[in-house]
Amino acid sequence: MSSSKVGLSPGTLIYVGPEVVKDTTIKLVEYNEKYHKERTIDKVADCQIASDASYISWLDVDGIHEPEVIEAVGQIHHIHPLLLEDIMNTRQKPKIEFYNDAYVFISLKMLYWDEKELSIDAEHVSFLLGANYLISFQEKRTNDIFAPVLERIKASVGKTRRNGADYLLFSLVDLIVDNYLEILEKMSEQLEELEGLILESKHKDPIGQLYNLKRQLTLMRKYVWPLRDMLSQGLRENSKLIQKSTIPYFRDVHDHITNAIDSIESNRELLTGLIDIHYSTLSSRMNSVMKTLTIYSAVFMPLTFIAGIYGMNFDHMPELRQPNGYFYTLGGMAILAVGLLIYFRRRGWM
Amino acid sequence: MSSSKVGLSPGTLIYVGPEVVKDTTIKLVEYNEKYHKERTIDKVADCQIASDASYISWLDVDGIHEPEVIEAVGQIHHIHPLLLEDIMNTRQKPKIEFYNDAYVFISLKMLYWDEKELSIDAEHVSFLLGANYLISFQEKRTNDIFAPVLERIKASVGKTRRNGADYLLFSLVDLIVDNYLEILEKMSEQLEELEGLILESKHKDPIGQLYNLKRQLTLMRKYVWPLRDMLSQGLRENSKLIQKSTIPYFRDVHDHITNAIDSIESNRELLTGLIDIHYSTLSSRMNSVMKTLTIYSAVFMPLTFIAGIYGMNFDHMPELRQPNGYFYTLGGMAILAVGLLIYFRRRGWM
Amino acid sequence: MSSSKVGLSPGTLIYVGPEVVKDTTIKLVEYNEKYHKERTIDKVADCQIASDASYISWLDVDGIHEPEVIEAVGQIHHIHPLLLEDIMNTRQKPKIEFYNDAYVFISLKMLYWDEKELSIDAEHVSFLLGANYLISFQEKRTNDIFAPVLERIKASVGKTRRNGADYLLFSLVDLIVDNYLEILEKMSEQLEELEGLILESKHKDPIGQLYNLKRQLTLMRKYVWPLRDMLSQGLRENSKLIQKSTIPYFRDVHDHITNAIDSIESNRELLTGLIDIHYSTLSSRMNSVMKTLTIYSAVFMPLTFIAGIYGMNFDHMPELRQPNGYFYTLGGMAILAVGLLIYFRRRGWM
Amino acid sequence: MSSSKVGLSPGTLIYVGPEVVKDTTIKLVEYNEKYHKERTIDKVADCQIASDASYISWLDVDGIHEPEVIEAVGQIHHIHPLLLEDIMNTRQKPKIEFYNDAYVFISLKMLYWDEKELSIDAEHVSFLLGANYLISFQEKRTNDIFAPVLERIKASVGKTRRNGADYLLFSLVDLIVDNYLEILEKMSEQLEELEGLILESKHKDPIGQLYNLKRQLTLMRKYVWPLRDMLSQGLRENSKLIQKSTIPYFRDVHDHITNAIDSIESNRELLTGLIDIHYSTLSSRMNSVMKTLTIYSAVFMPLTFIAGIYGMNFDHMPELRQPNGYFYTLGGMAILAVGLLIYFRRRGWM
Amino acid sequence: MSSSKVGLSPGTLIYVGPEVVKDTTIKLVEYNEKYHKERTIDKVADCQIASDASYISWLDVDGIHEPEVIEAVGQIHHIHPLLLEDIMNTRQKPKIEFYNDAYVFISLKMLYWDEKELSIDAEHVSFLLGANYLISFQEKRTNDIFAPVLERIKASVGKTRRNGADYLLFSLVDLIVDNYLEILEKMSEQLEELEGLILESKHKDPIGQLYNLKRQLTLMRKYVWPLRDMLSQGLRENSKLIQKSTIPYFRDVHDHITNAIDSIESNRELLTGLIDIHYSTLSSRMNSVMKTLTIYSAVFMPLTFIAGIYGMNFDHMPELRQPNGYFYTLGGMAILAVGLLIYFRRRGWM
Repeated sequence: MSSSKVGLSPGTLIYVGPEVVKDTTIKLVEYNEKYHKERTIDKVADCQIASDASYISWLDVDGIHEPEVIEAVGQIHHIHPLLLEDIMNTRQKPKIEFYNDAYVFISLKMLYWDEKELSIDAEHVSFLLGANYLISFQEKRTNDIFAPVLERIKASVGKTRRNGADYLLFSLVDLIVDNYLEILEKMSEQLEELEGLILESKHKDPIGQLYNLKRQLTLMRKYVWPLRDMLSQGLRENSKLIQKSTIPYFRDVHDHITNAIDSIESNRELLTGLIDIHYSTLSSRMNSVMKTLTIYSAVFMPLTFIAGIYGMNFDHMPELRQPNGYFYTLGGMAILAVGLLIYFRRRGWM
Repeated sequence: MSSSKVGLSPGTLIYVGPEVVKDTTIKLVEYNEKYHKERTIDKVADCQIASDASYISWLDVDGIHEPEVIEAVGQIHHIHPLLLEDIMNTRQKPKIEFYNDAYVFISLKMLYWDEKELSIDAEHVSFLLGANYLISFQEKRTNDIFAPVLERIKASVGKTRRNGADYLLFSLVDLIVDNYLEILEKMSEQLEELEGLILESKHKDPIGQLYNLKRQLTLMRKYVWPLRDMLSQGLRENSKLIQKSTIPYFRDVHDHITNAIDSIESNRELLTGLIDIHYSTLSSRMNSVMKTLTIYSAVFMPLTFIAGIYGMNFDHMPELRQPNGYFYTLGGMAILAVGLLIYFRRRGWM
Repeated sequence: MSSSKVGLSPGTLIYVGPEVVKDTTIKLVEYNEKYHKERTIDKVADCQIASDASYISWLDVDGIHEPEVIEAVGQIHHIHPLLLEDIMNTRQKPKIEFYNDAYVFISLKMLYWDEKELSIDAEHVSFLLGANYLISFQEKRTNDIFAPVLERIKASVGKTRRNGADYLLFSLVDLIVDNYLEILEKMSEQLEELEGLILESKHKDPIGQLYNLKRQLTLMRKYVWPLRDMLSQGLRENSKLIQKSTIPYFRDVHDHITNAIDSIESNRELLTGLIDIHYSTLSSRMNSVMKTLTIYSAVFMPLTFIAGIYGMNFDHMPELRQPNGYFYTLGGMAILAVGLLIYFRRRGWM
Repeated sequence: MSSSKVGLSPGTLIYVGPEVVKDTTIKLVEYNEKYHKERTIDKVADCQIASDASYISWLDVDGIHEPEVIEAVGQIHHIHPLLLEDIMNTRQKPKIEFYNDAYVFISLKMLYWDEKELSIDAEHVSFLLGANYLISFQEKRTNDIFAPVLERIKASVGKTRRNGADYLLFSLVDLIVDNYLEILEKMSEQLEELEGLILESKHKDPIGQLYNLKRQLTLMRKYVWPLRDMLSQGLRENSKLIQKSTIPYFRDVHDHITNAIDSIESNRELLTGLIDIHYSTLSSRMNSVMKTLTIYSAVFMPLTFIAGIYGMNFDHMPELRQPNGYFYTLGGMAILAVGLLIYFRRRGWM
Repeated sequence: MSSSKVGLSPGTLIYVGPEVVKDTTIKLVEYNEKYHKERTIDKVADCQIASDASYISWLDVDGIHEPEVIEAVGQIHHIHPLLLEDIMNTRQKPKIEFYNDAYVFISLKMLYWDEKELSIDAEHVSFLLGANYLISFQEKRTNDIFAPVLERIKASVGKTRRNGADYLLFSLVDLIVDNYLEILEKMSEQLEELEGLILESKHKDPIGQLYNLKRQLTLMRKYVWPLRDMLSQGLRENSKLIQKSTIPYFRDVHDHITNAIDSIESNRELLTGLIDIHYSTLSSRMNSVMKTLTIYSAVFMPLTFIAGIYGMNFDHMPELRQPNGYFYTLGGMAILAVGLLIYFRRRGWM
């Protein structure tokens, strides 16, 4: 994974991320309120978008691991080489960049929640919004994350068909952000379950699990936090590429992101609280173990000592000669034991 | 509860929150200094507000779980679809939005303190302030939270009747915010009670309770914090919808919110302090248990060892033959025990 | 104390604070460089201040628990009803408000240090600075906190007599702020004493006391922090009511407040440090208790075991028959014990 | 190392850093798209750069420990004496300074990761960017850190040859920053390895190592944090020395620095988490030790006591006379022991 | 030390600080590039500075405990009474104040490191920079802190003689700030030494020492932090009193202060780390003590129990009659002991 970039000439295209074997798939969707056409492009050279057309063009590049493909797409659409680098670098954190009124570049993360490993999996997604077109880049995975929007366009449901490329961008970003809230919901449930187990002391060693959840939240925060500022900045820029009527929709996404951030923060607080409870429980349990030990010792040590006394072999020990000495001794021991137990109960140790 | 919105077309109205079975109740109150009329609206279509009227109209929608009702109200009063989404989403955090001088949208939370469960219960409330009307939306619960203001308007007490729709908005927000301070007062009392119990070590395991209170405070903070900024922003906006004479009243509400936030923060500090005390108490108790154990062991181990010595069966053990050996030994043991106890008392262990 | 305001019409005057039985005292002081007159006002209606006079008028209202008195004073001097509410609400946090060039409203806290209970007691104080007059409101307590300034004016010492109402305000605020530094000094001494006791482990359970001091500091911070911003804001406002020559004096007060805040923060750090030391001491003591126990056990367990061996009743145990077996055994035990003690001393446990 | 500067006249040149014995090496590289010349300068006086030339001049001073050399370079190129001080002070933190449009001064740190000592080693690097020249200063070490760029210029690969001195500066800074990410990658791997060991409790005392890593991260943060602000400031300055076409490249470096800072912060969080886990593990282990002790004591104390009872020498002890008393007793002991073990297993202690 | 100021008329001069017995010394130094004269002033009335002179005048007042002296100096040079208060108040925190272009007032702290008590000692220093003069105030101590600069002026070394009063101010401030870095260096060494002792567990109770260092750092931070903002503000003010050519020098001091602050912060982090390590060490040691105890108990308890069994006095105990029963028992005990030890070693407890 650590394909080092040190020493390479800046701007050299190189894919940074987990290994991929499949080929890149490129799809071109053209639509307006009445027209709709979708086709898969086989040769990269054919991915040219019709400019000044009466319809919206959406070029979806599924796969960012082949430098030659990305470079070709970049050259055809005049994308700055540094942006191509960002598109191929899965470690790039979310960012927005305005290239005058020519295009807007947005990169962010699609997140998946792996229920088995209880971990977050991030897919690097980039968008390039032009006057009447949108180019999207996603990592080659088993599923196409934009399928629901593709379906809606095909079925002509929703407002996407009636609006511009900026609305399409909004729909795709909204899809990704809604997914964040979904994941946070699942983590909350996980946390509540853990909370129950910890409060009832049923979980033997929850620290590893708590710690893992904390890491996942930290990771998620790393991906979600920058989005808020990105959107604020984007709305402030007043770019011609985003129409006035679409702005409320982006403001809405901004709201959802704020909700997600709040959710992340409160989950983190919850976690910290659970860790505290766990430690407190450990301490309490230790206390209870020590009390048991102390009570045992406190009761049996004096008794054993008394038994030891009468086990001594002195020639002259008058008690030993008494006919009922043994029974008196047993009785005294019983009284002592009961007395000690009462004493400890009074001190609240039992 | 987790009615997922992922994949749905944005702007699709869907209720997010706990299940509700009752029907929505809609009430229309019209008043000015001299005139007052209150009626319940049965058909949503009849909820039209008279524009440019000489009186103030207050439309109170009690119930936000029926998409068709909210949509109808929205269409009649030209409310942006995204706002309708916010009105129906009980997870939406407090926010303010200005739609030019047409209307102001405010959403916030009415909070209840459940004395039994020691938890906060939030009701999602939204307001839409227009030129001479106010539309309020609340969740359908057993009680109508705006009852006191309704009463005051009916009885013509207070300044509400003499002022505009903005003053009505203020009255309702003030009602909600005063309630926050009330709840915080109750939590303070709860905390003081807990503090007494912990300081006197009477509470066996307060960590769960402390932790719950912390969660409630975190929750409350989440609802109250955004209000301060909202109000500051609202006052800065200089909207025509809020008259100059009403501004001092909103500034007053702003003050109350600041007081509430301060109260939340100092309660949180108190809690952290209590958790510290609790841990310190746990440690002290452990220390005392260990001291008891150590004293017992330190006293009885040597004594039992001596008894063990004289319990050995060597043929030649001169002390055993001495007539008073037994009593001398007992005396020596007593002296040793007393000496050890004095030693431990001097070290401050008893 | 919790006289609830929920549901009351906003602006309704109600006293919030500890119960008071005494009557309100109102004093009117008129002075300029040459003239001085002081009289107690019996009927509230007589508290009218001469406007445009050649002298400064200071109206001191000692008592804020009688709504009718405060309302009367408010009506006579045209004070906004919401300010009257703030004057009577002892829970109101410090604030400043400018009403154009008509008057400035300031509310803050006079603090007392209760040496017995080691707690801070706050008295709610409000000022209303007009063109050539000052109205002050204080809670009815045993002492009049403004006595020293009154004395100075009467005795014609200091610069107060030569300056305007704004300088009088400065003198009173300065008095209150100097008192903060005094209290902090006392708390520092308290802390240093505690520190000595904790470092020498002479204090058995200091956590309650440390915790109380922390609460008092938190309380104090709550009262002092807002003052800094208030003064900065006040100086920025450039109000006509505050003369240029008085500004350096207010800047000086601002400096003192900053010093007080610094002092609060460093005292808080000191406290946190002391709590850390206390825990460390607890741990060290526990360590020492456990070492004692372990050494006892480690020494006596083997010895008692040996004694047990020779206390067994086997028919054939050759050692028991040896004439000096007993003494050899005792010697062996002594050597073992000394060896173990040397071992533990080497490990640094003794 | 602590060659004190206290009491010296300000501006006195003095080298602050680890001792160096080697001589300073000065290299002058001149190039444009077609031309390339590289030579080593033996006499400092010859290091004059051709002004207004049609090619870019890069003067690389390898060694900053000889005040006379630095002073000579400074005088020839009119560098402010205070900058010379900064160039020679290896403790100087990263900074940027604009001297109108004459030149820009940048100082930052090249970092090395010492795999053996697991520590960061910093080399102080300074740049002076003029109209068509760049002067670089580095500490005299075994390797020349700028070798890869030198190679690229010589081989005429990459864009450096086609661009100005500002692009050269970018290439060098980019080299340094890419190295940061490399180091952070290595630290991450280190951390993950440690995490595995700690989670499986295989590392006996990881606290020293964790603590060392934390220190290294703190150190790194100290060097990397200021860079971000430096670059932001540099881009804002709008200096003529940096061409418009180079700005995207610097923005890219800015991005990388932000990534590095994020990486530092998340590594720090990881570390804090690992420390928590370590403590939790310590506590759990203690718990398990104490349980073992308690179970042993709880089982053997009563048994030993019973044996003690029947070891007493009373004349009249009826059980002793029973033919099978011994076996009954053994049986009773076995039952008691098993019962206790079952009890402890039920309580979850085994 | 607590000479209370409460109730005193504001502006009353009073010395706040440790008691001083020596007299104030006043020195007047006049110099320009060619001219130099230094004399001690015996009567305060003679301390008048020649205005509009062709040379720089430096009035150094060594002693701030005599109100009459400070007042006289203040009246002669028209210093605002509140500034005189600040000069005499050793508790005053660092600050800068501009009195138009008449003069600039700066107060800061000279710090000493007491190697014996490991504590910081602060001396209150104030400067008043006028058009061509500088007045400095320092506490009367054994040494004159400005001696090195005095020497340089006398010897005509350095740039001071060639520059204005602002450069003189810079030289003095630089002297003080360089001293901060010196002290921090010493503290770092102290910390590194402590670190070694703690990591090798050689220091028995380092918490007191760690805590003291933390306090000293907090104290230092209190004195150094405000300086940074002061200088930034001073540079922004664009006062005529500070020449353009001197600004880079002050910027350099600003850099040094930033370095000092960074150093303080990283030392504080180091300290926190050391406290963590100390606690971890305490826990580990406790763990090891408990393990020792448990192993002893676990080995000797069963053995003693077996010995107890064969010490019982039952009439019929067949093992006791076997000729080699004793030796078999001893052997069995040895095997049991070895087995247990192997078991504990396997569990990693030995």
